[in-house]
Amino acid sequence: MDFQSYFSDRLTALQDEGNYRVFADLARYRGDFPRAEHTAQSGQQQDVTIWCSNDYLGMGQHPDVTGAMHDALDRCGAGAGGTRNISGTTHDHVLLERELADLHGKDAALLFTSGYVSNWAALGTLASEIPDMIVFSDALNHASMIEGIRHSRAQKVIWKHNDLADLEAKLAAAPANAPKMIAFESVYSMDGDIAPIAEICDLADKYGAMTYLDEVHAVGLYGPRGGGIAEQEGLMDRLTVIEGTLGKAFGVVGGYIAASTELCDFVRSFASGFIFTTALPPAVAAGAAASVRRLKQSGSERKGQRDRVAAVRAGLDELGIPHLPNPSHIIPVMVGDPVKCKFISDTLMEEFGIYIQPINYPTVPKGTERLRITPSPVHSEADVAQLLGALSELWNRCQMARIPCAAQ
Amino acid sequence: MDFQSYFSDRLTALQDEGNYRVFADLARYRGDFPRAEHTAQSGQQQDVTIWCSNDYLGMGQHPDVTGAMHDALDRCGAGAGGTRNISGTTHDHVLLERELADLHGKDAALLFTSGYVSNWAALGTLASEIPDMIVFSDALNHASMIEGIRHSRAQKVIWKHNDLADLEAKLAAAPANAPKMIAFESVYSMDGDIAPIAEICDLADKYGAMTYLDEVHAVGLYGPRGGGIAEQEGLMDRLTVIEGTLGKAFGVVGGYIAASTELCDFVRSFASGFIFTTALPPAVAAGAAASVRRLKQSGSERKGQRDRVAAVRAGLDELGIPHLPNPSHIIPVMVGDPVKCKFISDTLMEEFGIYIQPINYPTVPKGTERLRITPSPVHSEADVAQLLGALSELWNRCQMARIPCAAQ
Ligand SMILES: Cc1ncc(COP(=O)(O)O)c(C=O)c1O
Ligand SMILES: Cc1ncc(COP(=O)(O)O)c(C=O)c1O
Repeated sequence: MDFQSYFSDRLTALQDEGNYRVFADLARYRGDFPRAEHTAQSGQQQDVTIWCSNDYLGMGQHPDVTGAMHDALDRCGAGAGGTRNISGTTHDHVLLERELADLHGKDAALLFTSGYVSNWAALGTLASEIPDMIVFSDALNHASMIEGIRHSRAQKVIWKHNDLADLEAKLAAAPANAPKMIAFESVYSMDGDIAPIAEICDLADKYGAMTYLDEVHAVGLYGPRGGGIAEQEGLMDRLTVIEGTLGKAFGVVGGYIAASTELCDFVRSFASGFIFTTALPPAVAAGAAASVRRLKQSGSERKGQRDRVAAVRAGLDELGIPHLPNPSHIIPVMVGDPVKCKFISDTLMEEFGIYIQPINYPTVPKGTERLRITPSPVHSEADVAQLLGALSELWNRCQMARIPCAAQ
Repeated sequence: MDFQSYFSDRLTALQDEGNYRVFADLARYRGDFPRAEHTAQSGQQQDVTIWCSNDYLGMGQHPDVTGAMHDALDRCGAGAGGTRNISGTTHDHVLLERELADLHGKDAALLFTSGYVSNWAALGTLASEIPDMIVFSDALNHASMIEGIRHSRAQKVIWKHNDLADLEAKLAAAPANAPKMIAFESVYSMDGDIAPIAEICDLADKYGAMTYLDEVHAVGLYGPRGGGIAEQEGLMDRLTVIEGTLGKAFGVVGGYIAASTELCDFVRSFASGFIFTTALPPAVAAGAAASVRRLKQSGSERKGQRDRVAAVRAGLDELGIPHLPNPSHIIPVMVGDPVKCKFISDTLMEEFGIYIQPINYPTVPKGTERLRITPSPVHSEADVAQLLGALSELWNRCQMARIPCAAQ
């Protein structure tokens, strides 16, 4: 087989569909996020304002976080030097796991190299190691959850997104004695909608299921201490597993689960994706712990973000630019066409120095292509005004529909 | 189902088998690796010398590496803030990928969050996306390769470890026209033996297979520029994919593949484990690039390591302490009993301040329990003398067999 031509053909097909991804090459400026330097494929460099980062609160440049990382780098060096079991557990890992368990009101937490790996490894292990497990998975769950469940080869039942009636019908149809797990997210990252967690926990109780909640787009952002939507709604103790990332609102990298001591120890002992990989650098663990600690105590970053989100939404409404209403911090500006979406994104970058990655299929369904805007406390009022002006101009230029007086 | 008791029962079973893992909690000292502070479960703290790290060359504390990380932290902040596609590609990622492609003489390279993820995602994608692929996998391949192949659901044929006749028989038995891939490692980390790469490439040519080589325990360590065993033997251009880690000899964290532009672009475009996860922090990318650059130019770390490895081996031979002969830097001191292995390890730690994690089942087969020693250029001659003295004393105390005049 001619592998090279096979690869080329598949890549050409992607390009023809408009789904070939070109990565924007960015260099942030020292402490000046959302500002960055963009290097185009031509080599040309330009200053841009990032409006699509998942460093939702700008914690990636918070002095508590970078300070803790500098300090740990000096104390411990660059890498962990081993898997968690073979010389790679440093005191910074131990402290971070304690911090995370406390954040979610659980007895234990377990660190992974990323949120992706935490979902893949934890779901994969729970679903494969508990005999006859049936996993009830929300239809819009993240790729990492889907792959973990798939990897487990456990029986999987997909329920309609956030649809309690459908979930209950499916739970009721399964054998009463089979072990069950309901896997879902709190904030869904592309639409910004939020799951009915309490009602899902009620169903879990009724049918004896464990619950696995991905709070990746909520930790740090919701709840009085940044424990996520479950904290905000006083539900943390009703969830069997809360999974989160250290790479979005916490601004560093890594993932984790928080749960009972036994469950964490079980996953720690049996998950290949946890056992057979180098531990995160101590400096990453120290930076993440500092970020978690800061956001437990301080609400100012969360308030700043809420204010900016409200300002962008109000501006869009005034201009009649359509965006999906939702109760979260994610503002999906709907374009509905992959070519236009990419064109608007390219023009925002080239003419206005505004970087918003277009979100096309397969990340979202065809016909729902969008610009996903994530305002943060480090965006200024002037940034908001510039963004709204640029979008308005491009809406005219592309003859995109406006909503006369957008519903609030 | 009572999930908690199920977890407890499984964990008790592990403990009864002697396979329950307790992580050593370590804190390295500033620039003073292999020295670290160990916190016992009792809370008691003690100074130890680490002899089982995969920071093989001490690059985790090399000033080039930590300096580059400090600098990137100041320039760019803590995290990447997004997936590679959505604002997470920084200039440091781009530069590191170039450095890695150059290291292996390939046109391109692709970064992952770990070596585990690079194997899992790259093998999973190549084997599932190329229709009818048959993967020929060495029997001792690492868990990350096994899981990637398993995840792909492609047909898998396991050949006897490093056995060319068995590999050829299996290649010959497969349909001539089916796409084939041979997946193997260069240095196997538990025995330290090395694959016959040239002969495997000959078979790949003969049967039209692509080759996928994991050089995780060889990159940085072998070859004039640290390109691995394939570089040392002048074989890099014969391999389709070379996979490596940034978390062992390079001293940081992360993983990668190096291959043709099309192959890397193909994996970049289709691998869920690459696409749907936060990019590595720019500081990690910058530190890893500095480490790769340093080890391309400098042979002194490799020479220092070789000298220490030779000194430990010679000392063990003199004392008649049995260790597996092999052509690599890994010294497996064979104990052959899980309880003794753990006892020796515990005593080394408590009485001598020497930390060598016992390697028991399932990492190695039962009956081959061992202490895996990894001397590095940062171990002093006095460290070597102390290690040998401690082992000799314990060999007496445990009435372990000695080999009268050990074969070299
Ligand atoms: C819902 C969800 N879960 C998990 C992940 C993976 O987390 P991480 O980026 O830390 O790998 C992501 C995004 O990347 C996500 O959107
Ligand atoms: C052969 C082999 N491949 C891959 C890996 C995974 O690399 P990483 O630690 O970077 O995840 C390891 C060890 O951890 C390994 O021994």
